[in-house]
Amino acid sequence: MKTIRIGFLGLGTVGSGALAALTAEREAIARRVGAELLPVRAAVRDTERHRAVDTTDLELTTDTMAVATADDIDVVVEVIGGVGIAREAVIAALSAGKSVVTANKELIAKHGLELFALADKHHVDLAFEGSVGGGIPIIQPLGSGLTANRVKQVVGIINGTTNYILSAMTRSGQAFDDLLAEAQAKGYAESDPSADIDGHDAAYKLTILAMLAFDTAVSEEQVCREGISSITPADITLARNLGYRFKLLAVAKDRGEKLELRVSPCLVPETHPLANVNDVFNAIFVEAAPVGQVMFYGRGAGADPTGSAVAGDIITVARNLGRGGQRSYPLGFSGHRTVATVDEIESSYYVRMRVADRVGVLAELAGILGSHGVSIAQVLQTRITDDLTAGLAELVWITHDTTEANIRASLATMDGLDEVVDICNVFRCFGVDA
Amino acid sequence: MKTIRIGFLGLGTVGSGALAALTAEREAIARRVGAELLPVRAAVRDTERHRAVDTTDLELTTDTMAVATADDIDVVVEVIGGVGIAREAVIAALSAGKSVVTANKELIAKHGLELFALADKHHVDLAFEGSVGGGIPIIQPLGSGLTANRVKQVVGIINGTTNYILSAMTRSGQAFDDLLAEAQAKGYAESDPSADIDGHDAAYKLTILAMLAFDTAVSEEQVCREGISSITPADITLARNLGYRFKLLAVAKDRGEKLELRVSPCLVPETHPLANVNDVFNAIFVEAAPVGQVMFYGRGAGADPTGSAVAGDIITVARNLGRGGQRSYPLGFSGHRTVATVDEIESSYYVRMRVADRVGVLAELAGILGSHGVSIAQVLQTRITDDLTAGLAELVWITHDTTEANIRASLATMDGLDEVVDICNVFRCFGVDA
Repeated sequence: MKTIRIGFLGLGTVGSGALAALTAEREAIARRVGAELLPVRAAVRDTERHRAVDTTDLELTTDTMAVATADDIDVVVEVIGGVGIAREAVIAALSAGKSVVTANKELIAKHGLELFALADKHHVDLAFEGSVGGGIPIIQPLGSGLTANRVKQVVGIINGTTNYILSAMTRSGQAFDDLLAEAQAKGYAESDPSADIDGHDAAYKLTILAMLAFDTAVSEEQVCREGISSITPADITLARNLGYRFKLLAVAKDRGEKLELRVSPCLVPETHPLANVNDVFNAIFVEAAPVGQVMFYGRGAGADPTGSAVAGDIITVARNLGRGGQRSYPLGFSGHRTVATVDEIESSYYVRMRVADRVGVLAELAGILGSHGVSIAQVLQTRITDDLTAGLAELVWITHDTTEANIRASLATMDGLDEVVDICNVFRCFGVDA
Repeated sequence: MKTIRIGFLGLGTVGSGALAALTAEREAIARRVGAELLPVRAAVRDTERHRAVDTTDLELTTDTMAVATADDIDVVVEVIGGVGIAREAVIAALSAGKSVVTANKELIAKHGLELFALADKHHVDLAFEGSVGGGIPIIQPLGSGLTANRVKQVVGIINGTTNYILSAMTRSGQAFDDLLAEAQAKGYAESDPSADIDGHDAAYKLTILAMLAFDTAVSEEQVCREGISSITPADITLARNLGYRFKLLAVAKDRGEKLELRVSPCLVPETHPLANVNDVFNAIFVEAAPVGQVMFYGRGAGADPTGSAVAGDIITVARNLGRGGQRSYPLGFSGHRTVATVDEIESSYYVRMRVADRVGVLAELAGILGSHGVSIAQVLQTRITDDLTAGLAELVWITHDTTEANIRASLATMDGLDEVVDICNVFRCFGVDA
């Protein structure tokens, strides 16, 4: 039986997970590939460090570039992360004619086009299933099984940290700051949590999904991005009462002339499959013709799930090597779609405000929305009974689809009125007009 | 640009859907494949019949075998169904060195091994994504992206007709017979509904999933199978009150020494992702190591979804043709796992019975369960207040996991008691001990 030799760049959480997966099912995998997959070498920062995975049969080195270009390695697995040495090493490996597997979302989002062209030039594979959705197979289905479809939208819950915090806020009624601290204590959030809670991580992943779904080059800088830190327990409760759950949604939508790319907290109707994706689970919902609605659900991060995706890619790449090193599917991204600006984004909205509890206020505010072309789907008015704010009412509007520009213009007009004490929060809603 | 020529065997619902998909996105597909896909000929029963899809550019013939073996056809798409002429034609096409795409669950379940061996011998593809789960990509993920995993269980809602009826029963409280008639009127159920409601359709699909997941040869005759016609509105309501939804589940589970294969109505906890898969939607839930839990959700039948899967397979096969006709992944099914008999099946159970409303009855019955090693998870006792059955109580037991043999022995003992008026219904539960 032929042997395919694997070199790892990095051996942290994801690398260890992939190595463990290859080792645990070695015989079954050899049978399924028709060749033995042999991890031979790993480039790591510290060769002496104790690791969660058995590295006895592995040569450890600190020389990343040497592993990337070694003559005796057939497949290079990049699990360093970031776009410094990881990018250099992947370029070197592809240029040396090696197929590459990576789970690096930032690398693919920022430099995918360059790397795909390089892989194409050298007739090798560049596989990146682990870059989005952890263990969920989504890259391959989008690039292969669903490829007869015209995609209308891809909507993902693709960041586990924010979904864990939002699920906990919904269950417990606790505030964002408290639950962030809890998530940090449990290891579900980084000590600097900005990449997750401000939506950067999700924006990278959305960029990759959009490239695949719409066959076009896009950049993560084109993603309109908002984080989850402004959501209060009051918003969570009101959303629940109106039949919604808060989720950080990553949306890539074909609006005909333009593509809409956005990551923002959204109210999702509790009957929608995405509403019940909780804790560290991820899901990617695809709406396309002719397939209709499909959803992919699973664990979005961690050594085991992402290790499964990376090991699956290694197997795919190894199978292709056995057939002459051809690519699984072409990734040219030949389209050049224009991306909508934030003002052009269309969505329905949730607006919470405090207003004077007087005759005619509701009618006046509804009139302002109407004059800006904003149609109302749901309204909830509640008297505020605490001592400090007696005489005020809390108003929540859920609108039908409108543009961000229209909603902003409406709110600017309202904000100038004496009757409007404050506009507490504004969020997008998903699926109200579905 | 190269042209890959497609011949259709059959042009009914699924064939028309696939043809429409290939036509609608012709240019995008050509770009993604690197070759033009050209449907050239279709074998149909009646060449004069009006069809939902435009067949202007297609040569229609009644000679199935001629299309299957035609020199000018590269890919044969079998969408006739059944195992008569469909099997003969697929054998002829593979033997003639043509790659074959099929959506025929019965053909793959019954003759998959023979056909995979033939495809292997002739170095061609045999793709069958459309055979399970309509438009949901599940065959390719199981055979490729998840293939580094050891599968523990595959649990599917893979029959749209029964899921439509059970969803409607849950919503409306109406009886099975009424809703079956409604489903037939809407075209969601056949005039002879047995293939769906008795679980034959799901058993074929489960056989295919089990072959892929456990890399073993199994037969649909080894699937323990029960239909949904015995479920009453009373069971639906009681299940709801206890926090469950009825679903027809297809389960393939690795029990270590043996595989368990079963299709039966099950009570699913309302918090489980499968509980919220309603109407004609399908879902396949996979539990595996290291990936954990993943679920695939979408429309399980119909021209458009299944057409998407068949067209996706045509694209995959065409890409492989461009690289010398190699297979997407090997399908040897080298394992030979033993399948558990119905007595050996392990599950938790729902038992509904009517008993005399007397002191000590509950304790006596609980004692009988205990003496057979059956542990109780939930009990619900209700007084029956109608005139005819006054003095009786209705008892519902939900057990922890036990064998079918144990539950049957317990019920046989109970059935002999004066206090037990009748054992109304027994169903399996899913996920109680998860």
